[in-house]
Amino acid sequence: MRNLITITTDFGVRDHFVGAMKGVILAINPDANLLDISHDVASFSVVDGAFTIAQAYAYFPPDTVHMVVVDPGVGGERRPILVQAGRHFFVGPDNGVFSFIYEREERITVRHITAAHYFLQPVSRTFHGRDIFSPIAAWLTKGIEASKFGEPISDYQRIVSLNPTIESEKRARGMVLKADKFGNLITNFSIALFPQFVQPQPPVFRLDIRGQQLTRLRQTFGEGAPGEVFAIVGSSGYLELVCNNAAASQALNAGSGDDIVLTFG
Amino acid sequence: MRNLITITTDFGVRDHFVGAMKGVILAINPDANLLDISHDVASFSVVDGAFTIAQAYAYFPPDTVHMVVVDPGVGGERRPILVQAGRHFFVGPDNGVFSFIYEREERITVRHITAAHYFLQPVSRTFHGRDIFSPIAAWLTKGIEASKFGEPISDYQRIVSLNPTIESEKRARGMVLKADKFGNLITNFSIALFPQFVQPQPPVFRLDIRGQQLTRLRQTFGEGAPGEVFAIVGSSGYLELVCNNAAASQALNAGSGDDIVLTFG
Amino acid sequence: MRNLITITTDFGVRDHFVGAMKGVILAINPDANLLDISHDVASFSVVDGAFTIAQAYAYFPPDTVHMVVVDPGVGGERRPILVQAGRHFFVGPDNGVFSFIYEREERITVRHITAAHYFLQPVSRTFHGRDIFSPIAAWLTKGIEASKFGEPISDYQRIVSLNPTIESEKRARGMVLKADKFGNLITNFSIALFPQFVQPQPPVFRLDIRGQQLTRLRQTFGEGAPGEVFAIVGSSGYLELVCNNAAASQALNAGSGDDIVLTFG
Repeated sequence: MRNLITITTDFGVRDHFVGAMKGVILAINPDANLLDISHDVASFSVVDGAFTIAQAYAYFPPDTVHMVVVDPGVGGERRPILVQAGRHFFVGPDNGVFSFIYEREERITVRHITAAHYFLQPVSRTFHGRDIFSPIAAWLTKGIEASKFGEPISDYQRIVSLNPTIESEKRARGMVLKADKFGNLITNFSIALFPQFVQPQPPVFRLDIRGQQLTRLRQTFGEGAPGEVFAIVGSSGYLELVCNNAAASQALNAGSGDDIVLTFG
Repeated sequence: MRNLITITTDFGVRDHFVGAMKGVILAINPDANLLDISHDVASFSVVDGAFTIAQAYAYFPPDTVHMVVVDPGVGGERRPILVQAGRHFFVGPDNGVFSFIYEREERITVRHITAAHYFLQPVSRTFHGRDIFSPIAAWLTKGIEASKFGEPISDYQRIVSLNPTIESEKRARGMVLKADKFGNLITNFSIALFPQFVQPQPPVFRLDIRGQQLTRLRQTFGEGAPGEVFAIVGSSGYLELVCNNAAASQALNAGSGDDIVLTFG
Repeated sequence: MRNLITITTDFGVRDHFVGAMKGVILAINPDANLLDISHDVASFSVVDGAFTIAQAYAYFPPDTVHMVVVDPGVGGERRPILVQAGRHFFVGPDNGVFSFIYEREERITVRHITAAHYFLQPVSRTFHGRDIFSPIAAWLTKGIEASKFGEPISDYQRIVSLNPTIESEKRARGMVLKADKFGNLITNFSIALFPQFVQPQPPVFRLDIRGQQLTRLRQTFGEGAPGEVFAIVGSSGYLELVCNNAAASQALNAGSGDDIVLTFG
């Protein structure tokens, strides 16, 4: 029984956009179970959308349909796509917003959605979330086979800059993926790449960010001194820069996209 | 099976208000399916609430109950009403918040809700969303006939200024209905009134707003030059002033309620 | 059929946190019915979280599971707890966030959650909302007995400063619990403690807050003169300082935690 649809957008919740999409889905499948992941992805930020869905999808049951509408190119040449990856479905624009999924999952099929008879007609030029992605997600939960929506493609878009550059055995150059609501700075130094941070004896290291240097790794927020910025292995699986009960983003005056250099020894 | 209830308010999501309403509904009907349209309608703005529900309701399945609580007059003389319009139900205050619905739908019955035995007792003076509107919406989804809640009335409130003034064959005076989350300015020049904007050869026109003049109509956001403000036919069915990947509201320093003059030729 | 779970956090809705928690719950119990109360509790504010859940829980049907994750001490010594209070369940950290519940309900059992085989493994040090509280809430709705999750404790935390200090028969010292979205200031002068405010002839009184004095009690917002700040008996059951269609918090330059003195006569 495939009836779960998660929704991730940069539409905010001030306007009618999210409500209209939910109405479209429920008019097609009244038994769909709709869940908001976030509607406050940074406006137009494909990277933030990519990170947000990547951090949430894997916790959902098999056959969940994840709709992601962060779509600055709406109405232009970018294709609508349907992705089958592992045991999940993804619906959204082909702009790289599923890049982390492509990296992590092994069995990937990406289809260019072309079956216009499933769309809400007339299709607007500016709101494909309502007119294309919502109906496709809804029909998927009605049991329509993925193959009915379009042909597989292999030239789908990936964001190439999401991983750090390994400059030497002792040095890597990365970036801040995002500042979360608490001002924790989530870097792209993943534990998958740097497993030494979860060893019983973590290595000596230095992080350089916006002219400041950090050298402390702690286990929990509460271990930090007041005002101290330090690193933790975040629940996201990435190194995070944090501050106990305060915002590291403010303390460092740093945010999404900022450079950060990791040096060992 | 009538079990869908949408909720639109200006209550925000910081406080307990929305949660309390949902609890009241589910205590009456545990099978109700609750959907948020928006809780960030501009505070006290009946016009913004009216626009928000008008843009969303029609996508929902028949028999959906739409609860709208934008209610600056709560506890005063304004009446609670139950509206049957087309195939939908609406519950909320009689302050004009359903004005667009009255314009668009043909079969309209508006009832003054007086059946106090359905209310949550004691009824507070300041939170009818919880004490009156939520129970009425919940009982509606339990199959109680609309006629049980109160008698039809004909003197219900309408906002009269929502439509543009046609000053001549070549000139109309309208307003900005709202700036959406992206800073797109949604005007009240509807395509229903000005179908020439969706003709293959759109007319020559000028829009005057806050001392600035716009003359370009485009199909998609992506066609705009960086920083350029232009008009599109929005997904809302209204002319919108937009900017590619940026906020027209900032570029024009304009927002909800601002005058805008449309001149043809 | 116990399948309702409400969620209250200070996680905001910008990030993946809430989505990840919902995925964890639905992977364990696909029939769980998830409801957001608020994710915009003031960051790290146990008092605000305590007030928010206290104002909402009682409206929900019996056997609802209320998950509250306002957890500045996550990963440290504070215990995860499961509370049975009246006809409701509560899951969250033992930091006082259920203090109002302990005051209001009569049959209280608080258990230290220790049954790690129900947790999501590996348990992170910084996101127990996902790894501990969500699975426990989900398993509760699957019908697992509360006693399976841990032993009762009696030394659970309470916030002691939530009630006003009665300084004399004519004078009490209280505080602002919070400013709500409209800028209404909700005080901790409850109607339970001061029932005279709902008598047909309310007493003569004075409220001193931030150097200003208020002496008017009104029934509804609409009775206020423009710009006037006055008291009402709020829908929350507490005295509130409000302003008609405006923010009392701005007019008084006051907010959460501010002192307020009530003098009778």
